[in-house]
Amino acid sequence: MGEGRSLGEVGVISILRSRDLLYICSLTSGTQERVARANWPSRGETETGMSRLALSDTDKQARDWFVDTCESLGCEVTIDEMGNTFAVRPGLKDGPPTFAGSHLDTQPTGGRYDGILGVTAAVEMLRVLNDNWIETTYPVGVVNWTNEEGARFPISMVASGVWAGEIPLATAHNLQEVGGGTATMKSELQRIGYLGSKPATHKDIPMAAHFELHIEQGPILEAEHRKVGVVKGVQAYRWFTVTVSGRDCHTGTTSFAHRADAMLAASRMIVFSHRAASARGALASTGILTLKPGSTNTVPGLVKFSLDIRAPKDETVQEVEDACKQAFMNIANGINVAGLLEGGTESDRHCTVEWKTDSVSPAINFHHDCIQCVKDASEDLFAEKTENLTKIMVSGAGHDSVYTSKRVPTSMIFVPCRDGVSHNPAEYSTPEDCAIGAQVLMGAVLHYDRLRAEKGK
Amino acid sequence: MGEGRSLGEVGVISILRSRDLLYICSLTSGTQERVARANWPSRGETETGMSRLALSDTDKQARDWFVDTCESLGCEVTIDEMGNTFAVRPGLKDGPPTFAGSHLDTQPTGGRYDGILGVTAAVEMLRVLNDNWIETTYPVGVVNWTNEEGARFPISMVASGVWAGEIPLATAHNLQEVGGGTATMKSELQRIGYLGSKPATHKDIPMAAHFELHIEQGPILEAEHRKVGVVKGVQAYRWFTVTVSGRDCHTGTTSFAHRADAMLAASRMIVFSHRAASARGALASTGILTLKPGSTNTVPGLVKFSLDIRAPKDETVQEVEDACKQAFMNIANGINVAGLLEGGTESDRHCTVEWKTDSVSPAINFHHDCIQCVKDASEDLFAEKTENLTKIMVSGAGHDSVYTSKRVPTSMIFVPCRDGVSHNPAEYSTPEDCAIGAQVLMGAVLHYDRLRAEKGK
Ligand SMILES: [Zn+2]
Ligand SMILES: [Zn+2]
Repeated sequence: MGEGRSLGEVGVISILRSRDLLYICSLTSGTQERVARANWPSRGETETGMSRLALSDTDKQARDWFVDTCESLGCEVTIDEMGNTFAVRPGLKDGPPTFAGSHLDTQPTGGRYDGILGVTAAVEMLRVLNDNWIETTYPVGVVNWTNEEGARFPISMVASGVWAGEIPLATAHNLQEVGGGTATMKSELQRIGYLGSKPATHKDIPMAAHFELHIEQGPILEAEHRKVGVVKGVQAYRWFTVTVSGRDCHTGTTSFAHRADAMLAASRMIVFSHRAASARGALASTGILTLKPGSTNTVPGLVKFSLDIRAPKDETVQEVEDACKQAFMNIANGINVAGLLEGGTESDRHCTVEWKTDSVSPAINFHHDCIQCVKDASEDLFAEKTENLTKIMVSGAGHDSVYTSKRVPTSMIFVPCRDGVSHNPAEYSTPEDCAIGAQVLMGAVLHYDRLRAEKGK
Repeated sequence: MGEGRSLGEVGVISILRSRDLLYICSLTSGTQERVARANWPSRGETETGMSRLALSDTDKQARDWFVDTCESLGCEVTIDEMGNTFAVRPGLKDGPPTFAGSHLDTQPTGGRYDGILGVTAAVEMLRVLNDNWIETTYPVGVVNWTNEEGARFPISMVASGVWAGEIPLATAHNLQEVGGGTATMKSELQRIGYLGSKPATHKDIPMAAHFELHIEQGPILEAEHRKVGVVKGVQAYRWFTVTVSGRDCHTGTTSFAHRADAMLAASRMIVFSHRAASARGALASTGILTLKPGSTNTVPGLVKFSLDIRAPKDETVQEVEDACKQAFMNIANGINVAGLLEGGTESDRHCTVEWKTDSVSPAINFHHDCIQCVKDASEDLFAEKTENLTKIMVSGAGHDSVYTSKRVPTSMIFVPCRDGVSHNPAEYSTPEDCAIGAQVLMGAVLHYDRLRAEKGK
């Protein structure tokens, strides 16, 4: 092969269909193993997991690996005030780089794939481009975003949020670590040597586009035997705390007819929320529930529970919210909503219900061009099997791509993970699926580069 | 009036229908005020309540008051190894005394009536008998049972349980105080000077019968505008811990069709338990519920909840338990029980459910003779209004009378309490209702004495 071949000469399919398939597989999983083993001392059931809280010593190790590797692959590395790390491989022309990236931090007992796959696959992309002497028209970059998980500093995707101008730098810098420690994001960035001088903003660190490969964190691709999720957006969600107030009373001495049982009312509400969401193709879930006073022989007078409502469209979330608000009030007042009170005993005492909105995240629609590049890259790989092996989907969870999408064309690629498990040491994607994801990521970046070349910008 | 009048000469009705009604009222409530104010420093919202944990310094004060008062009223006082305190007023003949009694200890933030009313009303009975020179055929006694609440030493009714031979003395003596302290019942009995030498057993301290006046601790009498509950027994109850195991997953990335949502399943089970109990005139309540892992965006994989099932008959409790066991299993397996899954989304992942039995308390039937004496005493007082003003009922909660009933004829008298509230500083019964209860208590004891006299034993 000659020096400095262009994309047209090499072709994406040929890379994967040759010995390079195995090469990518082994390297992709090999890199993960390398990162994982360096930072995760073996400890029984979690020995396959990862515990790499943002800006910890182990995060510094992973960052150092990332910087060293990218530099050794010929990239110029920039670190901004949030510790976001951008590695750029030059193109034939100048211009904002087309980025691939994700995050290297994890949950306290997380897995080895969430976020990590997106960064390591992007690094593999750099290696494959180098090994095959591929020159892109415009620069190509890889980014590692800081504290995506929000597990140590409690705002998720905070550093991409600052870059996008959606979260003030000071808010992010002053975030205190959870668990009662005194460290802030800024003090920890400083301590591990990743408080860069470059302003953390899209104005100073421009991107042409952002592609993110990520495990699905859900069971759909695996259940449908598909290999690639073409992610067209992120579903909307709203978080609420619902407080149901009744009256404590003795379980033995108070007949059903005289109770205001907050736990019974809350149970009916939770059952209702599932129905309201089911009817509209949405999701509703209760992940937290506390009650008072909390003894076996006291009917609880107070229950608080979380309600997480999600749907691809904002209007659908609103519909479920409206339906629940109406129904919860009726349930609290002893009105037979959707048959839920049937067969029960009417009571002359009622509960009250209050809603607090904790979080509102509107639906995100990724960019048409980026989605098309992911489709094209999948087609390169799967050919006539594309329809069977890919699925157009919306992401249920937030990712750094939510913030990048506010500033630059963005989309995501999902690969299956076993049983849909994530945020858990058992998180697993096969080396083959990781490689397929890496291949589609690279393909999408190269397609986007070609698209820019065609458009001349 | 002459000296040493017998019951027949005085008549019960005349006592109440004369100035003595007011006398009893003022004394009964007056005594409570005295006891309450001595032991409850004013502190805002709980200033009307009582905090007199068993064998505390304030319990010692109340016990000293009880002993002094009973002795000054001519009683002989015996203290047993459990600190149970028996005051006996002689009769014309020897024989086991007919007892009235209850407990002077309270919950940490309890009221001034639960238990206390039963003891102070019994003390008033002694006073009224003395003031009216009434001689009973057999001795009459008043008992204050130790640690009925089980709030400080965590077995309820433990000292009457020892007396009845149902709880070993050593078990009771070795009970450690809750909250991490090192005191035991025995060490605290010793410390406050109430570790008596008399064996705590019905064999050494015989009773002819036991009557207990108590606030209802429920809303039924008040709601039905009745004044006296003729308590014919104590309902059966069983306590369970139900564990529902599903699978943690992300609320955003896992469709309903792939969830094993333990909280949704538990909610359906709680709604079902209410229906199963309603259908059988029983009670079912969930007072404790915990879940894991407990975050807004994670579907809980584990829920544990308490289930308290009660009914007047053991068979009914069994029926509700059986119905719930069957239904919970079906709900866990995604089967549409009682329409609870209708309108929801079917899932290919199921939960499992496990039951642990924490406590089994069979139904108690009080003694026919004692119940009749309470009815007769009510009739003495209410005459033609008896049917409207009394209610035959079962006690929902346990009392010392549960244990005495295992050894001697026993029954209880309930009086209304405001809103059914108990174990709370807001607990309240009007002075008039307290006096009516005291009157019926005394009447029942005197009727029982007459019954014994007639039977000659
Ligand atoms: Zn992630
Ligand atoms: Zn009591």
